[in-house]
Amino acid sequence: MKEIIALVRMNAVQHTRDALAEKGYPAMVVTNVMGRGRQKGLHYEMHASPNGGVEVGTLHFLPKRMISIVVADNQADDVIQTIIDVNQTGNIGDGKIFVCPVAEVIRIRTREHGARAIA
Amino acid sequence: MKEIIALVRMNAVQHTRDALAEKGYPAMVVTNVMGRGRQKGLHYEMHASPNGGVEVGTLHFLPKRMISIVVADNQADDVIQTIIDVNQTGNIGDGKIFVCPVAEVIRIRTREHGARAIA
Amino acid sequence: MKEIIALVRMNAVQHTRDALAEKGYPAMVVTNVMGRGRQKGLHYEMHASPNGGVEVGTLHFLPKRMISIVVADNQADDVIQTIIDVNQTGNIGDGKIFVCPVAEVIRIRTREHGARAIA
Repeated sequence: MKEIIALVRMNAVQHTRDALAEKGYPAMVVTNVMGRGRQKGLHYEMHASPNGGVEVGTLHFLPKRMISIVVADNQADDVIQTIIDVNQTGNIGDGKIFVCPVAEVIRIRTREHGARAIA
Repeated sequence: MKEIIALVRMNAVQHTRDALAEKGYPAMVVTNVMGRGRQKGLHYEMHASPNGGVEVGTLHFLPKRMISIVVADNQADDVIQTIIDVNQTGNIGDGKIFVCPVAEVIRIRTREHGARAIA
Repeated sequence: MKEIIALVRMNAVQHTRDALAEKGYPAMVVTNVMGRGRQKGLHYEMHASPNGGVEVGTLHFLPKRMISIVVADNQADDVIQTIIDVNQTGNIGDGKIFVCPVAEVIRIRTREHGARAIA
């Protein structure tokens, strides 16, 4: 089994969730995190309208959402493709996907494990 | 070593924590997350009492707690059993347990690693 | 590839972030978590100043920050050393580092994967 971890924009959770559910992956966990990539956050110029002053600053981290889904090995590519389809805009900040090995999954209610405990 | 990740009800953290500590597993990390299973969240009917109106709705995600514990391979079954004992009610929402491989653990204060850095 | 997960003090994020960026590891994710070690939280005596009363209590969990960085296998030791350098005070609460295997990394914007998708 594999854990697919997608780090995406805050406003992309709903579309990603619906796209995954439609493909048969309804179960997931979402965590609020702060992230930064090789741009080291967001460098901004803020133009103050009354006097035309400019404030320059950096947000070292940006709020992101981390979506985690555990699936069978042969479902991983489908999940990854679905996440890319929804989140790829071509702009910086589209996010990343990490794939990690999972040794076991257990549904607490029934003690089912392995493939039967997924979703 | 293994990371045991338990996704449980919000109100189950205290009992799970105490049961694990009693068995000799005091160290853990708890994260606030939003989760959904194959029921795709919670579908509700809310009966408004004054006029008897009914509102039908869906919570796409429910607040959950994620408890993470890193233990030696031969402790994993004991930790999993302890978590199931506390969290199994037989109802939907009991949660899931994920087991993931961990390559190394280091205690920053002492640079101890491996089994000596656990708990 | 490896995921380096550092559980550190709340006020250590900025220094850790800057030290890692200087070494060439700008990309990371930070999550707010609650943690406890083998001390099972914090046991305190609070001296109430007006009447000299003493309140004894326990915080079962302490707020911590979890910093996650994914790097190539041959970068893991450098990242771990950098985190220890910044966070090792010799006091309880310095935190822990976990190293986990990562099977794949994908940059959503470009579909780059593997080493090219890191940072």
